[in-house]
Amino acid sequence: MSTEQFFEQVLSVRMTEDRKALDIIDQTLLPGTIRRIRLETKEAIWEAIKKLRVRGAPAIGVSAAYGMAVLAAQFTADDYGAFYKEFVALKEYFASSRPTAVNLFWALNRMDDCCRKAGEEGKSLDEIKELLFREADAICEEDVQISRSIGEIGFGLLKDLKKDGKPIGILTHCNAGTLATAKYGTATAPMYIALEHGWKGSDMHVYCDETRPLLQGARLTSFELNSAGITTTVQCDNMASLLMRSGKIDIIFVGCDRVAANGDTANKIGTSGVAILAKHYGIPFYVCAPSSTIDLKTPHGGQIPIEMREPDEVTQMWYKERMAPEGVDVFNPAFDVTDHNLITGMITEKGLCTDPYGEAFARAGIQ
Amino acid sequence: MSTEQFFEQVLSVRMTEDRKALDIIDQTLLPGTIRRIRLETKEAIWEAIKKLRVRGAPAIGVSAAYGMAVLAAQFTADDYGAFYKEFVALKEYFASSRPTAVNLFWALNRMDDCCRKAGEEGKSLDEIKELLFREADAICEEDVQISRSIGEIGFGLLKDLKKDGKPIGILTHCNAGTLATAKYGTATAPMYIALEHGWKGSDMHVYCDETRPLLQGARLTSFELNSAGITTTVQCDNMASLLMRSGKIDIIFVGCDRVAANGDTANKIGTSGVAILAKHYGIPFYVCAPSSTIDLKTPHGGQIPIEMREPDEVTQMWYKERMAPEGVDVFNPAFDVTDHNLITGMITEKGLCTDPYGEAFARAGIQ
Repeated sequence: MSTEQFFEQVLSVRMTEDRKALDIIDQTLLPGTIRRIRLETKEAIWEAIKKLRVRGAPAIGVSAAYGMAVLAAQFTADDYGAFYKEFVALKEYFASSRPTAVNLFWALNRMDDCCRKAGEEGKSLDEIKELLFREADAICEEDVQISRSIGEIGFGLLKDLKKDGKPIGILTHCNAGTLATAKYGTATAPMYIALEHGWKGSDMHVYCDETRPLLQGARLTSFELNSAGITTTVQCDNMASLLMRSGKIDIIFVGCDRVAANGDTANKIGTSGVAILAKHYGIPFYVCAPSSTIDLKTPHGGQIPIEMREPDEVTQMWYKERMAPEGVDVFNPAFDVTDHNLITGMITEKGLCTDPYGEAFARAGIQ
Repeated sequence: MSTEQFFEQVLSVRMTEDRKALDIIDQTLLPGTIRRIRLETKEAIWEAIKKLRVRGAPAIGVSAAYGMAVLAAQFTADDYGAFYKEFVALKEYFASSRPTAVNLFWALNRMDDCCRKAGEEGKSLDEIKELLFREADAICEEDVQISRSIGEIGFGLLKDLKKDGKPIGILTHCNAGTLATAKYGTATAPMYIALEHGWKGSDMHVYCDETRPLLQGARLTSFELNSAGITTTVQCDNMASLLMRSGKIDIIFVGCDRVAANGDTANKIGTSGVAILAKHYGIPFYVCAPSSTIDLKTPHGGQIPIEMREPDEVTQMWYKERMAPEGVDVFNPAFDVTDHNLITGMITEKGLCTDPYGEAFARAGIQ
């Protein structure tokens, strides 16, 4: 399968060619079943976001944007006032699908801004409908470009590691992959860009932490990398130390949820442990961070709140039987914070930043 | 529930008072169902060992020893030759239950030595039957004493940490608990001994790594500590870093499978990662090691082979659905090796040893 064929099959979301529907891969069925589904109604799109058939901040944003464009194009209103009223109702409906997804609101507001601006400029409804398609395309394409830029920088790091005849060992944690974004992912972008530059899947060997409790690494990351033809291994999170000790890991790429001004990075629970092991074993540890995740208003990681989640994700979800006694206390944080001094570099679409991160972010023009 | 009542209920194995059966807690039903079962026949005992209803090296050894004593007492042979023939057949039958369990053979051979020695000394069959009961009791009591000695030393470390009104935070990995031994466990012995010295369960807060892939920490350790009334929390393995960072862990106790002459320690996969995190965060990390696990013929940990286990333990066992794609490669080591320089101290029944371990073992009289 070529890299383009891979993206055809695994891309999280795209608009169909007739511009009448969204075409998504149903992530709730992975890794057992690969099924693309066509979403034509607002109810179907809402349900797909709600039920995590499409997930990952950028992928949700792109889905909502295309959803607005596709459905607005079918509005039958014949004046702007009626059109915009229907548009806002649809926006609010989509916003109710995942009320904590910041990227969802960001994308919906951007579509709203586009609509209002065109309305103020006196554009015709046909012109507005076309502009909404273009805005959704732009939201999607910008995400692709950010991932591609991150991937190119990461690919440069991989090239530096290339050894004769031996694959480069890469470890990643959780899923910061194509399934979470519009195309290349963030932590996976270096590998996909390497394929686009002609590397073979066997030039790399990616070790995916399974990432308890929700197992995104085992279910999603290993699925997508394996589908792309990249040599892929899954391991339990607690096996990373032995992997590093045995010399199998040359470099680590992880994604991030939020980066503080000093470079402290909140990401999926377990990331800080991976970084500490990497430092112990002398393995470079890179965070792949779109500049939109860098929050200069948060001075350091101690100020990033950590979401605590339900015990049953640990004690019974996924399992045939209860895995811990009834009533036992459970510690189930969704994220942790990795100290900036454990991070070899932060790969943003605006360049590679290294400690001191405050100065590096400023030099890269990140505000 | 008093500590003695707790052991009544949770003890891995004991002989019944009528000396006609073994009484075990069926560990395959934990943590959902607490059921003690009576094993009266050789087939029932064989099946319990085979099917892991009783597990953990010391507990298996004690079960086999009591099994030999209980059944030999019922032999109807009336001369030593016939008696010993039946005895050896039973020994070989038990040995076939778990062919890789070294402690099983060790216990069976010790019973065999006892039987032959008594035979050579011309003891009557009634005397021999009584001596076999005493040998099984000795095997059991020696294991209890080893655990108790380790527990007393560990309890001394806990006392040094005691702060007014705040429980001591303890982290442990896998199950080196009462369920695996004759009574106190090894890594859990300091906590149980603390209860026997009058500490309340709320004076300690034990955080149990769930310990993927087989989840012994979630299923067994949290069950037994919780049952003993000790404040207990379960977390995924990858959450230990955040726990340590947030100051919740004062000390770490783990068990071990094998210790090299320099102190390098093989234990359940993930132990080395816990030790590296502990060093990073400045938290004392202790290995609870019966001197029988210290193998002076192995100079260092690099010479300890690591058992690789079946992929389906990671990808589908326990789960309702497949957790990783069909055909993806899996890294599933059972153990890892923790460098001696990451270990604050090794608690043996002969005393607390610290680096350099070779000298410390010699001073403690470990050969």
